[in-house]
Amino acid sequence: MMDAIITRYTGEAPMDLAQWPTRVDATAVPAVDLTVLHDLQRRLYAEKQTGVIIILQGIDTAGKDGLIRHVFSGFNPAGTSVVSFKQPTSVDLQHDFLWRINQALPARGEIRIFNRSQYEDVLVCRVHPEILLGQNLPNIHQVADVNERFFKQRYHDLRHYETYLRHQGFAVYKFFLNLSQDEQTHRLERRLARPEKNWKFSTSDLKERQYWADYQKAYTQMLTNTATEKSPWYVIPADDKPTARNLVAAVLTQQLRQLNPQYPQVTTDEQQKLQELLKELRKGKI
Amino acid sequence: MMDAIITRYTGEAPMDLAQWPTRVDATAVPAVDLTVLHDLQRRLYAEKQTGVIIILQGIDTAGKDGLIRHVFSGFNPAGTSVVSFKQPTSVDLQHDFLWRINQALPARGEIRIFNRSQYEDVLVCRVHPEILLGQNLPNIHQVADVNERFFKQRYHDLRHYETYLRHQGFAVYKFFLNLSQDEQTHRLERRLARPEKNWKFSTSDLKERQYWADYQKAYTQMLTNTATEKSPWYVIPADDKPTARNLVAAVLTQQLRQLNPQYPQVTTDEQQKLQELLKELRKGKI
Repeated sequence: MMDAIITRYTGEAPMDLAQWPTRVDATAVPAVDLTVLHDLQRRLYAEKQTGVIIILQGIDTAGKDGLIRHVFSGFNPAGTSVVSFKQPTSVDLQHDFLWRINQALPARGEIRIFNRSQYEDVLVCRVHPEILLGQNLPNIHQVADVNERFFKQRYHDLRHYETYLRHQGFAVYKFFLNLSQDEQTHRLERRLARPEKNWKFSTSDLKERQYWADYQKAYTQMLTNTATEKSPWYVIPADDKPTARNLVAAVLTQQLRQLNPQYPQVTTDEQQKLQELLKELRKGKI
Repeated sequence: MMDAIITRYTGEAPMDLAQWPTRVDATAVPAVDLTVLHDLQRRLYAEKQTGVIIILQGIDTAGKDGLIRHVFSGFNPAGTSVVSFKQPTSVDLQHDFLWRINQALPARGEIRIFNRSQYEDVLVCRVHPEILLGQNLPNIHQVADVNERFFKQRYHDLRHYETYLRHQGFAVYKFFLNLSQDEQTHRLERRLARPEKNWKFSTSDLKERQYWADYQKAYTQMLTNTATEKSPWYVIPADDKPTARNLVAAVLTQQLRQLNPQYPQVTTDEQQKLQELLKELRKGKI
């Protein structure tokens, strides 16, 4: 039943984000048993075969931070960590755009959760192309140079990056939290009205709201151009937080189960040696 | 004249390394004025537009270290540095094979010289596939899995890596030092016979000599599969050290000239302001 709700988008047809639900029947999305995920993470970490990158994208207030807190809090932090990609630093900007991402990649067996990601580089700068000027990018001298060709190149590079990572034994799971503008209004209102939520409010969030339609277009382009059969985007209806969290947890459970991570096997020879050592230990010989 | 000697290989036809010269008429290769290169490097560093990666590959004793010392010693070390890629560490091996390369990439305006590089990952392990076992690579369980398909994938990833870097404003210049087996014999003899050269001798160099033909095959494959029109390999006859150094310096001079790096321009407005500040400084007002 849940499978019908999970929207695994593989880019086979162009998509229009406006037609994708931001809310689904919550009763159709049961709570996920997170202990299953905890067990899978421990196995993954012990096996040290596959590194996992979980990408969370979504507009301000879409619920990325809360989702991380709820879904991943029970994970063993040895092997699980979160990297938040905010505005690139001046050092980041002196390098290729994947440089800061490469610094943050997991080792085999680790899970790295990306709160925003390399995909910001086809989002914010698609809505505000002027921020790319003065970054010394090749052939970018004026806003008109930040054209379709420029983004096609970035989409291509982003797709190939994931192909390369897959070749190397790293799995990338991409989630887009799909929020409605009405729900964003409610959430921003709450942040302003409730003093304990005030710290999360940023005036820039309100300023960016005037670009809502531009962001929706940029997300649509991103999804259409970077979802593939082997590296799909999961488009998560985000207006109801518990539903969104359960959907992400369900997808992860399904995907990590497919990886089927196993504790390393100890051979019968080794087991015998260990038993002999145990005997000697008990006899006080070692 | 020198252009006729420089072998810029773009992969348009399969190549057989055995047919490429390891020695050319030294009188046809004049000494290169390195001060021109020094000036280009200063401009590149001031402009901060293009980052440069210089890759040096070649068998043991091919002359990589000496070449670096002779060609790059006069460069301003602010902006120029060398990274030597030796055997990957256990931490490197827990990541994708480009991870350690990504840690070493230059910023825009910098020159990074790679003494060996990501290309080791299609060389040593092509001659000794067994070293890939136990690295937890996907689908690599036995030596037979390290097959043509595996290397085709790596070549593809290596080619695309350079395409991506070019998109981002980073130039990669690749040099292969082509040494004959006879000349290697002489050089190893010298290392053994001359006490002041003894420190450079490694018994593993002698051990690897029995794989000479396999290495030649691996180099041939590497060149054929990763040279492109936009990212060629320069195949340098390496039996005569001064000739090899001059050829590399000549290619770099030609290539960096094409980048045409310029000191940042100060606008007339800014110049006027600076002149006013100078006046006030002289009057003791500031």
